[in-house]
Amino acid sequence: MTRPKLATFRADGRVRYGLVRNDGVVELSARHPEWPTLREVIEAGALNLIAEEGAGAAVDFPNGAFTYEIPVPAPEKIICVGVNYPDRNEEYKDGQAAPAKASLFIRFPRSFVGHGQPIVRPPESVQLDYEGEVAIVIGKGGRRIAEADALDHIAALSLCNEGTLRDWVRHAKFNVTQGKNFDRSGSIGPWLVPFQDESQIADIALTTRVNGEVRQQDRTGRMIFSFRHIISYISTFTTLVPGDVIVTGTPTGAGARFDPPIWLKPGDVVEVEADGIGLLRNTVVDEATA
Amino acid sequence: MTRPKLATFRADGRVRYGLVRNDGVVELSARHPEWPTLREVIEAGALNLIAEEGAGAAVDFPNGAFTYEIPVPAPEKIICVGVNYPDRNEEYKDGQAAPAKASLFIRFPRSFVGHGQPIVRPPESVQLDYEGEVAIVIGKGGRRIAEADALDHIAALSLCNEGTLRDWVRHAKFNVTQGKNFDRSGSIGPWLVPFQDESQIADIALTTRVNGEVRQQDRTGRMIFSFRHIISYISTFTTLVPGDVIVTGTPTGAGARFDPPIWLKPGDVVEVEADGIGLLRNTVVDEATA
Repeated sequence: MTRPKLATFRADGRVRYGLVRNDGVVELSARHPEWPTLREVIEAGALNLIAEEGAGAAVDFPNGAFTYEIPVPAPEKIICVGVNYPDRNEEYKDGQAAPAKASLFIRFPRSFVGHGQPIVRPPESVQLDYEGEVAIVIGKGGRRIAEADALDHIAALSLCNEGTLRDWVRHAKFNVTQGKNFDRSGSIGPWLVPFQDESQIADIALTTRVNGEVRQQDRTGRMIFSFRHIISYISTFTTLVPGDVIVTGTPTGAGARFDPPIWLKPGDVVEVEADGIGLLRNTVVDEATA
Repeated sequence: MTRPKLATFRADGRVRYGLVRNDGVVELSARHPEWPTLREVIEAGALNLIAEEGAGAAVDFPNGAFTYEIPVPAPEKIICVGVNYPDRNEEYKDGQAAPAKASLFIRFPRSFVGHGQPIVRPPESVQLDYEGEVAIVIGKGGRRIAEADALDHIAALSLCNEGTLRDWVRHAKFNVTQGKNFDRSGSIGPWLVPFQDESQIADIALTTRVNGEVRQQDRTGRMIFSFRHIISYISTFTTLVPGDVIVTGTPTGAGARFDPPIWLKPGDVVEVEADGIGLLRNTVVDEATA
């Protein structure tokens, strides 16, 4: 079956949300002033409801008449998992054993652009790198969520290119904050696919291509920390709320891991694709031309 | 001179903001529906304006009739500086030289409570520790702010007890995210003091006491990375916006640095005080009793 695709988009100068179809997008935000963004739709548990509304309606904005924004424009939190696929730990070549706990860091929404928008290489670094990842969006909030219940807290799935300035993640003794938070250095999207059951995420293929060449390819079934574990672990210290985004880690094969490293450069096209979710595509530009 | 003190507080079941006086608080939020929170007041550059309004008005809520919330309830960002006072680097005893760049990490607003509210020790750790710090709140936003212009971007000052679960900051290979983000594990406040000029921050005394005993004491003039540098450096990668909070680092003397370490326990009273800003006081409770 084809699952519905709900996107946040800009058209006629305004940010809106709606249902993506082959020929364009059906606007649903105009019908629901009570839910200003998809975050409030998620909070109301209404993703499937609006998807059904859109299924029978005419397209409001044909392809070419709108641009994608990140699906949840202002989530309370975007939490990223650091090292979560086999062989990734070995890539650090620091002789340390694989971690017993997930490494977590935080990104601000402004570090991401939507599908089809340019990813920006800033003048401060040439070490812009890609990281293809599956993103989950929290529906039902909670604290100290048991692994057994964790999937009940997922509202939707999306994709992320967790773009990174490699030299800036090592600026200081601890923490990768800087290199993970350059404005518009990564992307999320293209849309949200409502979560129905575990088969959508249990063992799906995740692939990252640069200019058509496969650079990262793995399956979520090989994740070191499972979706269930990540949700449970994060909610041990912080209360998850509707719209929170968890970016679940990237397979081996980022540009930094080549010898010599292969950094992204202006004109490069990065695609992140996963079974049943979609294909997130962005082109790299230099900041001066953004 | 006594500078005005603008606080976010809860009274009669609602979150409000106003001017703090000796005998209570003058509510100003009711007069300014166009500015729902102090964040919007800051964005409008109106902190001094509302302070003047409040100076001539009668107290709306006497002491005891309101409780403090964190001053900016939902800032876009709270960015914390890791190692920023002399001797702090040596405390890590890892033989590494002092860092050339500031270590930065991010906290969520829900990891903080307001002045006078209990700080919560969770059941997952007994290693709750204090870190007294000066917090600056951004007024004028910007990207790639020059050090020479940096102070023009400060709207106000506040204090922070950057409470930390020490074992949870070392859960993983990188990043201190977990141990810095337990719900209600730190505090910000009591209020905002509008920023006028550099003398307010250039070399002020910052003191942290536990149960009346001085544990941390230093002067901001000894910071490794100056206020100007921090604002400039952070704005290199991310656009600062009005209401953003930067927590500028803690002096030596946290509980983790004693041998054996001295962790906070229920009933302990932590006070963070700085010249010209105020005194932030919180009592520690176990989560079950919070």
